[in-house]
Amino acid sequence: MAEERPLARVTCTAPVNIAVIKYWGKRDNDLILPINSSLSVTLHQDQLKTTTTAAASRDFAEDRLWLNGEEADVGHPRLQACLREVRRLARKRRGGSAEDAAALSLSYKIHIATENNFPTAAGLASSAAGYACLVSALARLYGAAGEPSEQGQPSEQGQPSEQGQPSEQGQLSEVARRGSGSACRSMMGGFVQWQRGERPDGRDSIARQVAPETHWPELRVLILVVSGEKKQVGSTAGMQTSVDTSPLLKHRAEVVVPERLALMTRHIRERDFEGFGKLTMQDSNQFHATCLDTFPPIFYLNDISRQIIALAHRFNAHHGHTKVAYTFDAGPNAVIFTLADSVAEFVEVVRRSFPPAINGDRFVRGLPVGSASLPGELLAAVVTEPVPGGIQYILHTKPGPGPQLVDDPSQHLLGADGLPRRSP
Amino acid sequence: MAEERPLARVTCTAPVNIAVIKYWGKRDNDLILPINSSLSVTLHQDQLKTTTTAAASRDFAEDRLWLNGEEADVGHPRLQACLREVRRLARKRRGGSAEDAAALSLSYKIHIATENNFPTAAGLASSAAGYACLVSALARLYGAAGEPSEQGQPSEQGQPSEQGQPSEQGQLSEVARRGSGSACRSMMGGFVQWQRGERPDGRDSIARQVAPETHWPELRVLILVVSGEKKQVGSTAGMQTSVDTSPLLKHRAEVVVPERLALMTRHIRERDFEGFGKLTMQDSNQFHATCLDTFPPIFYLNDISRQIIALAHRFNAHHGHTKVAYTFDAGPNAVIFTLADSVAEFVEVVRRSFPPAINGDRFVRGLPVGSASLPGELLAAVVTEPVPGGIQYILHTKPGPGPQLVDDPSQHLLGADGLPRRSP
Repeated sequence: MAEERPLARVTCTAPVNIAVIKYWGKRDNDLILPINSSLSVTLHQDQLKTTTTAAASRDFAEDRLWLNGEEADVGHPRLQACLREVRRLARKRRGGSAEDAAALSLSYKIHIATENNFPTAAGLASSAAGYACLVSALARLYGAAGEPSEQGQPSEQGQPSEQGQPSEQGQLSEVARRGSGSACRSMMGGFVQWQRGERPDGRDSIARQVAPETHWPELRVLILVVSGEKKQVGSTAGMQTSVDTSPLLKHRAEVVVPERLALMTRHIRERDFEGFGKLTMQDSNQFHATCLDTFPPIFYLNDISRQIIALAHRFNAHHGHTKVAYTFDAGPNAVIFTLADSVAEFVEVVRRSFPPAINGDRFVRGLPVGSASLPGELLAAVVTEPVPGGIQYILHTKPGPGPQLVDDPSQHLLGADGLPRRSP
Repeated sequence: MAEERPLARVTCTAPVNIAVIKYWGKRDNDLILPINSSLSVTLHQDQLKTTTTAAASRDFAEDRLWLNGEEADVGHPRLQACLREVRRLARKRRGGSAEDAAALSLSYKIHIATENNFPTAAGLASSAAGYACLVSALARLYGAAGEPSEQGQPSEQGQPSEQGQPSEQGQLSEVARRGSGSACRSMMGGFVQWQRGERPDGRDSIARQVAPETHWPELRVLILVVSGEKKQVGSTAGMQTSVDTSPLLKHRAEVVVPERLALMTRHIRERDFEGFGKLTMQDSNQFHATCLDTFPPIFYLNDISRQIIALAHRFNAHHGHTKVAYTFDAGPNAVIFTLADSVAEFVEVVRRSFPPAINGDRFVRGLPVGSASLPGELLAAVVTEPVPGGIQYILHTKPGPGPQLVDDPSQHLLGADGLPRRSP
């Protein structure tokens, strides 16, 4: 059975993103249309990324999926929606003409393998990176889109190519949204807005890049991984209950967020950390406030989270301006935004406030962190009651680009037989 | 210097109240005018009360004040405002006529002694009971009002005596409000609304009884005193910051509370525990949500509070309807409303969930609590991960009457010399 193209494989990577204006609540559960626009920062894939290989072959008997090496259910409705939508885009791109003989048949079965380079314990929304990566790989496999950014090149993505027509990356973000709402924001690098849209069919509920990852070179991100305690309420169920029961969420979505989005966009454009940081903290707090206003109430912050919040405010108060800003998603882990020149000092403050119980040498991971000695008055004002072991570790990263195509064939997660390779 | 009236003394007691529609935020800081109406349940003084003796004499050289046996500053502006306003009412009541020779001179200096029968550790707003008691005693001393309810008699208070004219108790509630906002609600028994009012001078921002304490005989109250942790942000400072920074609080005060007040009043009139309990929990959660939406955020709930909330929801879910309802003020302690026939079972659930570390025999205080054995399926469904020592003790009480006049002269806190008696 000699074939010229027995197996087509594409491997992409995609980033995690952290919202600074939060998404919480759908107006359409099937299409995943949000009740408000949101805005996020795409994190660098050197520290956090998902890798996905998509393969298609006329020889595959059925669609199959592997998550972190374990076979998983490929029939998940959201995954199927992404597959269907990518194929629709590919068909549209190929035009009404007879099927291009050179193009991969859209009827072949597919194999998909996906892996995260970060532990689930980090509590980061892996579904956003996962679906962004899946859609990027499938789109490339089927020729539904050009390449995602060249590896290592800064991106300028998501700008409408002409009046009213979303960019290619914008169209793909609509597909990623069908997998997981916030996945649409992981389709671009830097600072990304997911616009709510108005249309019932969701065609205008897509991502748009506010600024590329090169826009604010000093911006840094510290992820403080809090010990213990699993997430109690999943975000899909949680946000549905919030939409159904919280009067404050309705007001937030209709009145507060539109004002904040405009303000946040300006702070980012002007690289105004004072404004960016304060609004980031306020919006995180308001998101958690609407969780508390939900009935029964939802709590994602725990006592360690509260202590991190109080620590950040003491740190900023001591310095007389906003040097660090926290944000929390649907879990107790803190994401801290700061500028490069404050990283070492704040990391030392965290180390003193939450003395590492074990693995002291692995307490700080990711980008290098310099050493800092803390002035006595800062220590006295900021480090009040240390909680040993409260934080497992800190991951140091920064804004990064959108999904990347992996050129090196040795990096495919699926072998020439279409099955997962043994991990090296 | 033989005088026919060397010393006039009056002793009153006054109750604590717990809001079920919360007060948070002033529109006028000096007059203590709230941004929204609120509604509370007055608790029984057999378990929680303040006692105050007010004495006046031409022989007193200066005004003096003792709090729980310790001399304190009598010059506090809020205390002075209450004094001034009670005298104003007395003057008005005595009429424009020449001073009544039989009446106590309003120019005499006064001595005030006040005591709580509950520890500050209970975290209950002692200022409400304190100012209600002060105003009750002063009003009686100066003849600014008739007697508060006869001891042990149910009250029907605060209803306007005629169109547009507040009752005597309503007028006094306006004075108590000048001491501490929620004190106005402690001027009446049972179920009490503090109406926001519209006037800039605050004359219509007064308490009004929704139903007397006899209205709902089955209603019970359990105060769960949580261990450790002092209140971080005082309520006066906290609510000011909330008014200044929380967009959600503004919406709550303007839109949500008016609807909820009407609903809560109906639930109380109909003795509908399902409705009363659910709305009580929702309003507590919304109050804490607005604290979280404040910048910097304010946290009054801690991990034990969150566990009590989750426990109450599991308990209600197991029973298929609302059997217990929590509410939290500006601190981590829970106040639980329930009906008499559920007290023993829920107390046992709390004891199993927070096994007493010490003083197991003093774990339940106040009204007697029967014993209950928990069915295995309830235990399995509701008592999940016990936290030993998480709760210090439970105080069992019920709704009660408003301020009381103490007739027995041996109960005066000030002796015939106008100085504090030694505690017995």
